[in-house]
Amino acid sequence: MRHARMRLAETFGKNVRKARLDKGMTLEGLAHEVGLAYSYVGGIERGSKNPTLDVVEKIASVLKVSPLHLLSDSG
Amino acid sequence: MRHARMRLAETFGKNVRKARLDKGMTLEGLAHEVGLAYSYVGGIERGSKNPTLDVVEKIASVLKVSPLHLLSDSG
Repeated sequence: MRHARMRLAETFGKNVRKARLDKGMTLEGLAHEVGLAYSYVGGIERGSKNPTLDVVEKIASVLKVSPLHLLSDSG
Repeated sequence: MRHARMRLAETFGKNVRKARLDKGMTLEGLAHEVGLAYSYVGGIERGSKNPTLDVVEKIASVLKVSPLHLLSDSG
């Protein structure tokens, strides 16, 4: 079965989680700095949320990576 | 005065408009194919809206360009 392409929001979530862990940040820490609920950011990482571009930009700036990095398949 | 960096949503809007015009599509045509209100898509192009990643992905697929292309400064 051909692997269905991941939704952009799922790719974003996967990359956020990787970048957060690379920086040794906890989910609580990221949620606090971004100013969003812990459960919402957890949902973003699981790909179950559909964040806006402003949220994407805010998370990227807290993680000190470019938004495009977090949105690309090779993130 | 240093030119303030454009918001990601503004960059996206500028690129959507350019890609749409490159394809000779009208705003009505794009709005219809994406399934969104004409006024909302117009607002996206002006950078006054804050679209979600699912909307970004849908617009990119209608315009047959990658979402990253529409989100990059050099879009």
